[in-house]
Amino acid sequence: MDSFTFTLQPHGGKPMYEQIYEYIAGEMWAGRLRAGEKLPSRRSLAAHLRVSQNTVDTAYGMLAAEGYVRAVPKSGFYACALERLSVQPAGAEPEPAQDAPASPPGRDRFLYDFRTDTVDTSIFPYTTWAKLSREVIAGGDSLLNRGDPQGDPPLRRAIAKYLHEFRGVNCSADQIVVGAGLEYLIGLTAQLLRGMGKIALENPGYERTRRIIRNCGGDTVCLPLDRAGLRADSLPGDGVCAAYITPSHQFPTGVVMPIGRRMELLAWACRAPGRYIIEDDYDSEFRYAGRPIPALQGLDQHGRVIYLSTFSKCIAPSIRVAYLVLPQDLLIQYRRVFGAYSSTVSRFEQQTLARFLSEGHFGRHLNRTRLLYRRQRSQLIQSLTGIGLPFEILGGNAGVHFAMRVKNGMTEHELVQRAADCGVRVYGLSEYCMVPVEDLPRSTVVLGYAGFSAADFQRAAALLKQAWMP
Amino acid sequence: MDSFTFTLQPHGGKPMYEQIYEYIAGEMWAGRLRAGEKLPSRRSLAAHLRVSQNTVDTAYGMLAAEGYVRAVPKSGFYACALERLSVQPAGAEPEPAQDAPASPPGRDRFLYDFRTDTVDTSIFPYTTWAKLSREVIAGGDSLLNRGDPQGDPPLRRAIAKYLHEFRGVNCSADQIVVGAGLEYLIGLTAQLLRGMGKIALENPGYERTRRIIRNCGGDTVCLPLDRAGLRADSLPGDGVCAAYITPSHQFPTGVVMPIGRRMELLAWACRAPGRYIIEDDYDSEFRYAGRPIPALQGLDQHGRVIYLSTFSKCIAPSIRVAYLVLPQDLLIQYRRVFGAYSSTVSRFEQQTLARFLSEGHFGRHLNRTRLLYRRQRSQLIQSLTGIGLPFEILGGNAGVHFAMRVKNGMTEHELVQRAADCGVRVYGLSEYCMVPVEDLPRSTVVLGYAGFSAADFQRAAALLKQAWMP
Repeated sequence: MDSFTFTLQPHGGKPMYEQIYEYIAGEMWAGRLRAGEKLPSRRSLAAHLRVSQNTVDTAYGMLAAEGYVRAVPKSGFYACALERLSVQPAGAEPEPAQDAPASPPGRDRFLYDFRTDTVDTSIFPYTTWAKLSREVIAGGDSLLNRGDPQGDPPLRRAIAKYLHEFRGVNCSADQIVVGAGLEYLIGLTAQLLRGMGKIALENPGYERTRRIIRNCGGDTVCLPLDRAGLRADSLPGDGVCAAYITPSHQFPTGVVMPIGRRMELLAWACRAPGRYIIEDDYDSEFRYAGRPIPALQGLDQHGRVIYLSTFSKCIAPSIRVAYLVLPQDLLIQYRRVFGAYSSTVSRFEQQTLARFLSEGHFGRHLNRTRLLYRRQRSQLIQSLTGIGLPFEILGGNAGVHFAMRVKNGMTEHELVQRAADCGVRVYGLSEYCMVPVEDLPRSTVVLGYAGFSAADFQRAAALLKQAWMP
Repeated sequence: MDSFTFTLQPHGGKPMYEQIYEYIAGEMWAGRLRAGEKLPSRRSLAAHLRVSQNTVDTAYGMLAAEGYVRAVPKSGFYACALERLSVQPAGAEPEPAQDAPASPPGRDRFLYDFRTDTVDTSIFPYTTWAKLSREVIAGGDSLLNRGDPQGDPPLRRAIAKYLHEFRGVNCSADQIVVGAGLEYLIGLTAQLLRGMGKIALENPGYERTRRIIRNCGGDTVCLPLDRAGLRADSLPGDGVCAAYITPSHQFPTGVVMPIGRRMELLAWACRAPGRYIIEDDYDSEFRYAGRPIPALQGLDQHGRVIYLSTFSKCIAPSIRVAYLVLPQDLLIQYRRVFGAYSSTVSRFEQQTLARFLSEGHFGRHLNRTRLLYRRQRSQLIQSLTGIGLPFEILGGNAGVHFAMRVKNGMTEHELVQRAADCGVRVYGLSEYCMVPVEDLPRSTVVLGYAGFSAADFQRAAALLKQAWMP
């Protein structure tokens, strides 16, 4: 492909880099730009389109981050196959066996705990929430009565609108089930799928998910990851009815699943009836470079994706509202099996949240929170750089945690244990392995950075300097 | 037993009828008043204790309602056996087979629907709730963060105190698990017991409970009732790990389980390890004659009772807060299996409810609600009596529904269908049977009366007159 023949709309609603991004992705979807074809050089495209080279850089960067294209050093950008993206095998050397399972540190309390499940609630707009809450309570008696088992329609409509606009999820309010937290909804999903087959899980991944599924009588199988996330070729042909994945920001490695892998997984789900992808989009709101990758659900033409997300991470953990988007066939089954269940969320809270969403408070809050977490992320990186620590961050620039490979010669076990001895809790990557992983990135620890101040990071970094660079 | 030798304390905290009730029940527990012994006549006891005969009547009535004693017409009151209370077999003739499963009426909408799951929220103290809610929100940031997985300690302490004072439940706040509705907690219980054996259910009973248990991979068995509730002798020796019962007011028959049957069920649970009673105390707050019967949990000395109840029925269905009281062994297992689960209830709502309880609002609300439901119950009975309908109410004077045997010669099926044809939905007793019951009381319908006005009852009764007494 030598030239692009489309017109930029400089005064249109969208930034020009997005227009370029969308055009090229569109050409690929249409089959006009094929796998292996080279994209025009950044300089020539910038000249051709009369935009700055930065604009083209941004668009190419987004395409690369999402797996549409890959950069070949000193050559340029090449289109990837959408259904069969060639991914590099995980290049890490095997961790010595004796270090693989990090023994839990021998301290109960830490000065700093980089746990990944903290949410910074310091910028939550209390007064707005309280005001909406009061309005809802003043609004009338009817809210005391039983509501719709799937959740109050105004909330579900607001969620559907948000999902469409911000996550590219295509669904009607009808397909949404509101529930008291992701755990409840993962359990519900496991119950819906019970008897259909095992649920495949990312390993390393959420141990909690495995536990919930097993508690509900479901069976699981742990599958390996590579640098593109869950390996689609590891999914067995039989016996597995669903793959539970975190494509926006894999937990805990931070891998952003490229578009090619997404399509591979969808293809697996479409290959036989009764197969589903469970897409846990848990912190997709927090992406700091480029725009968010659309959800897998939005790529799905055949009703194979169960989409899950929560407000607990982006509002506050104590606001227990999560939601499930069900494909049509499971929606029918859900209504048959769970139709008599009452909603698990207070209607007052549902209505408060519906207003919070539809009046734009949520969007503003998300923007503030995104800025805050981006700042916290860069402050942590700065503090670690400041102590002269050699490290490399794995995964994408997103979320509220990262996995970091420390290059000081210590094993993961030593990193975790010495940090603990200095009063800092960091989490070894192997702590998230439900079954041992042979080629796990070595010397890698996971740090959640939400809720810390710049001073916290500096003090924690000073302790880590003692621990890791004695 | 010819005379009582105890001293009444006329100026003590407790009403005198309660003192008499407690003394006699205590004598029975101590073995000093044995099964079959006759109690002193009401007149002679009143003279002996220098109280009015009404006071003795009330005490004897309570003892009879709770199964401690039974009245023999024209003879007097006799003590029952506590562990082996002789219960009369259900005296109803078998329903003709063709009428047993009431086909659902062919109307989608009714002018009056006597469903049993309505709650009258007209007297809910909104302004108080809103005020507490505002106070809680103003109280600080910390509530936005993750709380205790079992529920916030102030709420659990308030629940433990309430349960002890009002329901005779002996538990510490530690044993309480707060969750978003009974369904969630029944599911959790089923998951806790999974693999241990089947769960026995009352039949007729809550179909919903069976569904929840089965959805979680548990197995159930439906057992018959008699006039004392679930027949303990129907519990198999093997294969059943728990019996789910509603002893305060059996759903839907309204049977108040007598003390003897309670002890029989407890004895069954104690006879082998790994056996439990699941006591669903769902509308125990609404008892209109005598004082509430203490919960089975309070009679249990061996940690065999899992106690369940909810605030959705006594505050509002949209306030999704229910709770579970676990015996020690299951508490340990719960923490092992579910310890990582977040609470399903918003902490704001938990704290609001904790204040609502501890500041006495709940007690006052309960008193108002009890009066309201008692009035609604008697208004419905008056309206039905007013149209000249011959009927008899089964079960105790409690709850927000009753089962009523209509003596107009119609079958249950005819009663339900003709009422539907006149725009009134009543529920056939057989609709609550999960498996067919041979000796089900015939011509019996179930009516929930919460939320109706006196005028509603009169209009509905007028329609039922057309339907049932043409």
